[in-house]
Amino acid sequence: MGTIYQQRIAALRELMLSKSWDAVIITGSDPHCSEFPAERWKQVQWLTGFTGEAGDVVVTADHAGLWTDSRYFIQALTQLAGTGVELHKTRVPEQVLIPEWLAERFDDDSIIAVDGLCVSAEYTSSLPGSIVSVPNLLDSLWDGRPGIPQTPVFTADPGESRSDKIGFLRSWLNGQGGDSILLSSLDDIAWTLNVRASDIEYNPLVISYLLISEGSVEWFVLKDPVEDPETEQTFAALREEGILLRQYADVELALSQNEGTMVLDSNSINHHLWNICGGDVKLVPSPVQLRKSIKNRTEIDGMREAHLQDGLAMEKFLYWLENTVSDGVEISEWDAAVKLGQFRAAIPGYRGDSFETISAYGPGAALPHYITPRENAPVIEPHGLYLCDSGGQYDYGTTDITRTVPMGECTGLEKEDYTLVLKGHIALAMAVFPAGTPGCRLDALAREPLWRAHRNFGHGTGHGIGWFLGVHEGPQDIRQNLNPTPLVPGMITSDEPGIYREGLFGIRHENLVLCTEDGSDEFGRWLKFETLTLCHFDTSAIIPELLTAEEIEWLNAYNERVYKTLSPYLPEEISFWLRSKTEAI
Amino acid sequence: MGTIYQQRIAALRELMLSKSWDAVIITGSDPHCSEFPAERWKQVQWLTGFTGEAGDVVVTADHAGLWTDSRYFIQALTQLAGTGVELHKTRVPEQVLIPEWLAERFDDDSIIAVDGLCVSAEYTSSLPGSIVSVPNLLDSLWDGRPGIPQTPVFTADPGESRSDKIGFLRSWLNGQGGDSILLSSLDDIAWTLNVRASDIEYNPLVISYLLISEGSVEWFVLKDPVEDPETEQTFAALREEGILLRQYADVELALSQNEGTMVLDSNSINHHLWNICGGDVKLVPSPVQLRKSIKNRTEIDGMREAHLQDGLAMEKFLYWLENTVSDGVEISEWDAAVKLGQFRAAIPGYRGDSFETISAYGPGAALPHYITPRENAPVIEPHGLYLCDSGGQYDYGTTDITRTVPMGECTGLEKEDYTLVLKGHIALAMAVFPAGTPGCRLDALAREPLWRAHRNFGHGTGHGIGWFLGVHEGPQDIRQNLNPTPLVPGMITSDEPGIYREGLFGIRHENLVLCTEDGSDEFGRWLKFETLTLCHFDTSAIIPELLTAEEIEWLNAYNERVYKTLSPYLPEEISFWLRSKTEAI
Repeated sequence: MGTIYQQRIAALRELMLSKSWDAVIITGSDPHCSEFPAERWKQVQWLTGFTGEAGDVVVTADHAGLWTDSRYFIQALTQLAGTGVELHKTRVPEQVLIPEWLAERFDDDSIIAVDGLCVSAEYTSSLPGSIVSVPNLLDSLWDGRPGIPQTPVFTADPGESRSDKIGFLRSWLNGQGGDSILLSSLDDIAWTLNVRASDIEYNPLVISYLLISEGSVEWFVLKDPVEDPETEQTFAALREEGILLRQYADVELALSQNEGTMVLDSNSINHHLWNICGGDVKLVPSPVQLRKSIKNRTEIDGMREAHLQDGLAMEKFLYWLENTVSDGVEISEWDAAVKLGQFRAAIPGYRGDSFETISAYGPGAALPHYITPRENAPVIEPHGLYLCDSGGQYDYGTTDITRTVPMGECTGLEKEDYTLVLKGHIALAMAVFPAGTPGCRLDALAREPLWRAHRNFGHGTGHGIGWFLGVHEGPQDIRQNLNPTPLVPGMITSDEPGIYREGLFGIRHENLVLCTEDGSDEFGRWLKFETLTLCHFDTSAIIPELLTAEEIEWLNAYNERVYKTLSPYLPEEISFWLRSKTEAI
Repeated sequence: MGTIYQQRIAALRELMLSKSWDAVIITGSDPHCSEFPAERWKQVQWLTGFTGEAGDVVVTADHAGLWTDSRYFIQALTQLAGTGVELHKTRVPEQVLIPEWLAERFDDDSIIAVDGLCVSAEYTSSLPGSIVSVPNLLDSLWDGRPGIPQTPVFTADPGESRSDKIGFLRSWLNGQGGDSILLSSLDDIAWTLNVRASDIEYNPLVISYLLISEGSVEWFVLKDPVEDPETEQTFAALREEGILLRQYADVELALSQNEGTMVLDSNSINHHLWNICGGDVKLVPSPVQLRKSIKNRTEIDGMREAHLQDGLAMEKFLYWLENTVSDGVEISEWDAAVKLGQFRAAIPGYRGDSFETISAYGPGAALPHYITPRENAPVIEPHGLYLCDSGGQYDYGTTDITRTVPMGECTGLEKEDYTLVLKGHIALAMAVFPAGTPGCRLDALAREPLWRAHRNFGHGTGHGIGWFLGVHEGPQDIRQNLNPTPLVPGMITSDEPGIYREGLFGIRHENLVLCTEDGSDEFGRWLKFETLTLCHFDTSAIIPELLTAEEIEWLNAYNERVYKTLSPYLPEEISFWLRSKTEAI
């Protein structure tokens, strides 16, 4: 009999046998190389039961393996138990990635099948053997496979018109010597057209393609007939500006009929579209990624407003949490997440959370990507550390914040870790650096306080964040990988060092920071960070002797600013409570 | 008439005209891509008068230009005055490098001549037009051009036999599927054969090539007949081990007759040899670079001894300097350099300086690569800062140290800069980091104290150093460029932040540090630095309030260690003086 996953893998092997495929690769991505795919493209989950955000599967006649990174090792081992699928670890020194693994087993006569829609053009070139690209490969096996999502499309107002953005793309295209550019990354498209929807959970995106040439703009977005008035209105406005709305599936026709030089986004074009594209093809990273990472004045103002509103929700939540738990009421991690969601939902312009809230008490928080269980979630006890990583999508911006709060007495180790992570957070927040500096050169500032104590964390220190778009966006970041993209004024990045002790607790202190100018002099042009997030850091778990005078000064000034900014909008009792929580140390 | 340089460029243009060359590139390197070439290959200096360590020249019918980096802008402008040669700046954001500059002016029909011996194989592939490679291109114009140097060759004892090293190379070659490997980098050859000479000033190297295959080792080293007994003895020992000694020039014959697969070092093979090589050619970075950067026990012990001896010389020098200047004796920068050289020359096993001593008082020190003038050198006054960057070559190791010392009263700015640079030095010296970390991720630790005060320095923070070899060696470094080479236990690197204020003063605090293990735990394997250099940091120019408690602790412990280690070997009055200089602050 076997589990449902064993049955599905067996069915796939039957298909492979009938087609003479030696191996099949099933990826965790969608036709747009999205970080988070819609239900239809959660193929890895359907096949193996693994729900992590990153994971690819290879099935051969005698092996089924899941490749995923250190964030998901524990989760993968649990979820793959009994499926016969083996875990292959990535982002570890001894990693053997899928192309190498296949190359060790298969020669040039082998046939390797992929769903060409769900792998990138670049990826297939790294594989051995003959590649067979089968769009929607799993369709025949997957009963009731969800369709392509179609949620209401509405207009966003980022202070820059879509015609200006299209103008930017045309002038860039000119410089590249291209006749047209196909945008395939969903956030690139949403940014360019100032449109939003909810086709992907937590991501306000519209599943579509956008083709721009000197003379035309074609948006491949239509699926089933449009029935809701919001979408009708948005589409009418676009048509009025001369934008042609076409069927989503017609992108294949448009590409196959291409005659000039078409620029495809090397970071998001899938193998299938690249393969069928006629004319001359130029694979170049989309210029939208860098352009949209640099927020304009309206977007920055919106982000400030979002952080004010979000901070008020956070403080209400933390006040409720502290008082409820200390009153002896039994609150589970799930209850807390729901409560926080309610505070956010009351904010004007709220469009949903920006990712699934991580609400984790004690050992659960030791998993950086913990998923709070809906049923039987652990109860938050009146001691130790509770970690909450969450964020909202608002019409005027996106937030992402982590607070780790003492629920009562903490151990010496908890306090030491809490303080060292905070030192790292502050070091990055206070950093001044020359224009041109990439984030990877600053990453060690946030880690050195931990490193000196022989401690570390296994994720990046900072990721870019979109304006009412994805909570993760490039091209900049602050992490160990040597990404050469410089930090530029207007970019918004997280500052989130942490520490994770298996079976004990986890700590992360996360704010969003805006890169800003800091003057020029004989030594060059200077940049710094301005913290956008507004929510106090609890000082009761701090060991003050571990902080320098400068760090204490930063912390006191930050907490004071949080109090001064938020208290006018808070109910009196919460304002009073926040005053005490933000007392200088 | 014109200057001698105008005449030489005019003569070169005549040659170009007669050969129908559109452009000639003259580089500052030698046939081995050495950082410091011997006199014979100081072609840029001969042609233009520019003496900087980095610079390439392009001459066309109507333009002569020198390309050099920010370290040499001021020097180049001075030295090029009246030559008609224009300065092209490199390592600046707006730089236009030689290949781009030529591509803007010349098309594929143009003829560009290079001395194929003095440009790398890689470099020529980046140039436009047809490349004409003319070995020794300047020979016909350069009367009395120096020959290839030939200094006595002797044996070094690094605790690892040349047969072991040849064995390492053969096994590496095997893994590469090559039949033979040609080592062309002079330090690779000196390391492999455990030989040294003085063919290049400050660099104990033998100008030669080394060809290793499974069955033979051929050293292309012979020039004029050998007459000195040291060389005879060394050569006899090599022959006894089966190493074939051949004429330097015969390397061309050997390469042109190659039939199997020959591995050439992509970092140091010149265009000419690459071009004439027969059989199959594989361009790969030499494995010797990484291997020799990781010092063995004997080399590390030798480096410790070298730093003890060198530290004694430094302390004697600083004692003499302080007392002589405060006694009102007129000492020039040059006098000081000579005196320091005398202290080093008295050390057993001294083989010369490891580079030209930078002895600079006040404004001179504002040039990171200042050359102390032999005639009319500035006098060291009893106030302000004196900077001395120097090092020695010893039979058992190589040193490189910079001390900046207050000669009396210092200004507030001098003290502030002195302290901030020291903070940066200490931050790097105290760093703990996970195994696998490249130096570029640590560079900001040494800069952030300066950055926060809107100050910076325009050179790297740390370079690798050889064991009785070049004072600069790769593959690791600690600098802004994103060099991915991890720091590995056994590597020795400098820690030398600085600051330079044009017209005022310059500060640099430089020690050599050894990368060592620092234990393993649940978070991974840890590395740290051990400071090798032994010479106190003067505390009188420090503003203690700018240092953290941890930094003060490091400084006091370092100065105490210097005193404890050196004082037993110092004359009583210097030991007494050093006691007072190393009092805890």
